[in-house]
Amino acid sequence: MRTQVVIVGAGPAGLLLGRLLENHGVETVILERRSADYVLGRVRAGVLEQKTVELLERAGVSHRLHEEGLVHDGVELSFDGERHRIDFRALVGRTVTVYGQTEVTHDLMDARAASGAATFYEAENVSLHGFDGASPKVRYVKDGVGHEIACDFIAGCDGFHGVSRASVPAGALQTFERVYPFGWLGLMVEKPPVSDELIYANHERGFALCSMRSRHRSRYYVQVSLDERVEDWSDDRFWDELRRRLDAETAERISTGPSMEKSIAPLRSFVAEPMRFGRLFLAGDAAHIVPPTGAKGLNLAAGDVGLLADALVEFYAERSAAGIDAYSAHALARVWAAERFSWWMTSLLHRLPDMDGFTRRIQRAEFDQLRSSEAAARAMAESYTGAFGAESVMR
Amino acid sequence: MRTQVVIVGAGPAGLLLGRLLENHGVETVILERRSADYVLGRVRAGVLEQKTVELLERAGVSHRLHEEGLVHDGVELSFDGERHRIDFRALVGRTVTVYGQTEVTHDLMDARAASGAATFYEAENVSLHGFDGASPKVRYVKDGVGHEIACDFIAGCDGFHGVSRASVPAGALQTFERVYPFGWLGLMVEKPPVSDELIYANHERGFALCSMRSRHRSRYYVQVSLDERVEDWSDDRFWDELRRRLDAETAERISTGPSMEKSIAPLRSFVAEPMRFGRLFLAGDAAHIVPPTGAKGLNLAAGDVGLLADALVEFYAERSAAGIDAYSAHALARVWAAERFSWWMTSLLHRLPDMDGFTRRIQRAEFDQLRSSEAAARAMAESYTGAFGAESVMR
Repeated sequence: MRTQVVIVGAGPAGLLLGRLLENHGVETVILERRSADYVLGRVRAGVLEQKTVELLERAGVSHRLHEEGLVHDGVELSFDGERHRIDFRALVGRTVTVYGQTEVTHDLMDARAASGAATFYEAENVSLHGFDGASPKVRYVKDGVGHEIACDFIAGCDGFHGVSRASVPAGALQTFERVYPFGWLGLMVEKPPVSDELIYANHERGFALCSMRSRHRSRYYVQVSLDERVEDWSDDRFWDELRRRLDAETAERISTGPSMEKSIAPLRSFVAEPMRFGRLFLAGDAAHIVPPTGAKGLNLAAGDVGLLADALVEFYAERSAAGIDAYSAHALARVWAAERFSWWMTSLLHRLPDMDGFTRRIQRAEFDQLRSSEAAARAMAESYTGAFGAESVMR
Repeated sequence: MRTQVVIVGAGPAGLLLGRLLENHGVETVILERRSADYVLGRVRAGVLEQKTVELLERAGVSHRLHEEGLVHDGVELSFDGERHRIDFRALVGRTVTVYGQTEVTHDLMDARAASGAATFYEAENVSLHGFDGASPKVRYVKDGVGHEIACDFIAGCDGFHGVSRASVPAGALQTFERVYPFGWLGLMVEKPPVSDELIYANHERGFALCSMRSRHRSRYYVQVSLDERVEDWSDDRFWDELRRRLDAETAERISTGPSMEKSIAPLRSFVAEPMRFGRLFLAGDAAHIVPPTGAKGLNLAAGDVGLLADALVEFYAERSAAGIDAYSAHALARVWAAERFSWWMTSLLHRLPDMDGFTRRIQRAEFDQLRSSEAAARAMAESYTGAFGAESVMR
């Protein structure tokens, strides 16, 4: 078998890349280790930057997004129960759209299924070969039978634990990592969200977040220490803890109910450099991870595949390698801007296990700066909405 | 002996307070443990915010400052030899003025001497009494003879190691501290500065700063580890190390010469809360220390005594304690804004002993944000020039 681009991974990054390439007549095969149902069952956030929405529009999969997505003009920050709103629309003329990652994936899957493009789920033992030369190959096993696909390029969209980054020879990769000494305990509930916008709270007892997936489904988080076990958190205990970290007015208005899902996630910052090795490209979580505090994960993945699609389309249309050669540096400039923002939001809002009074006061002073300085609030709004100008600062 | 306000400490904070009170007919006595020559011999930086200049104008001691001070419209940041200018005038319509702290102290001393107001240098064993009641007293020994001054208020302007903060009962003070794991090796030279503006450099080998006292006198710094000894740093070694941390063009233009002064200073953040205890007020370094990276020390001290002078004048003119009662909260809002900025500038620019690649990349991403986001640059310019709106965010 032969195709132009083999895409490893059928998460939103891989599916979006496939869609963008397909629209320009570039042929792809997608290989996914899991089943489609498994992929759709993963619980992920979904705060989309305007650029991500535009990319989904370009990909022709924005119909339901525009019908069901919730446009947010800002977010609320809370410090020990004192609230302050950051007005994105007023500050930078941009908004974000809340639309679950699962829904994005669903829309992309439906579009790919309709197009009939080759997608192999439950593809086992995927291995990448020859990407340092002109004729890469990808091998996999499906239903006990081995297959090989010859291709021009491989796109590694298979996440942090995927085979793509692991296939890069030792020594060719430089990695950067920060593991945070706390986790997020998240709870999903079929109730309307407590507020029209997200509330990020820094409290003496730890971080809390009031988020949502839709007008009827809410997602709440509380910071917990890494040795906590989800079994020890009854719904009641969760609601009590959440309420204590919010202002009284918000705490009182929360619509509680039985949890649909409850889990603890660790927080990590990670970047692998470069993002290209010959004819293998890494995109999304395969190359970088952000803590969820800045809602950047899916947006970074979309940004990567947007760049990569443009580069590959340019290659086939104009036989120019310019976009391909610039991909890694171009993507990494945006990645590091988002890593900085995600690290900063995380540092601003969480209680560190060994935090001294000085650090706590500095957090307070940063919150006060966001309240008193239009410039500081605007810099934050730029980063949150993805309006940062970092693409102009390439290395 | 009796006076209205006893000021402990004849550094710039104490002298400026005395001057501002004197101008409104409030009588003061200043006690200083050291000699006038000793006070004038202390080497300190001198980057004055516009507000500090305005306060010195109000105090009537700005004549020489306006003649000899150098108005700077911006600063330069350098990251691994790549330079970027922050244009204060364009960003926030403000400037800073370079005028050595020693010169400020000199001008204030001359003004006080001319006014004939009581100033006792080499006052030993200063002790504070009864400031929790209505009749505070200050005792001291001069030339072997004990004295006591009865007063309405005591202003503690005697620095970090002074007796004022030490006189506050244990338990009444909350302190916040950060000691940085590196120092600044500074060298003064009678040569024109390499640049019209300050250059703050983050380099793989560590921080460096090109500063100045006047058009003919330059001050340079390199970050060193805390176990370095100044005896091990010949002038040649210093110049070599400095040049390696700057861009090639700047490095080449430095006018070197024999050092007039060379010393290693540690970096510390420190805040004591509150800044008032009955009829004792703390101001300047007696209440808080900032690392020198943001050039905030003298400006914070000036801000404190400006507030305190207004509060005391109001008390005597209108018999209102409103200003006095608000002093601590009002001053601390500005102090914490400056502490945040100084901590941030320090974190942005220095090499930490155990710094990993992630932190270094985050420093780079912050630098890139300052280059690419007008809002981020403006927030930085607001803080550097003292234009932060933190005074409106009182706790």
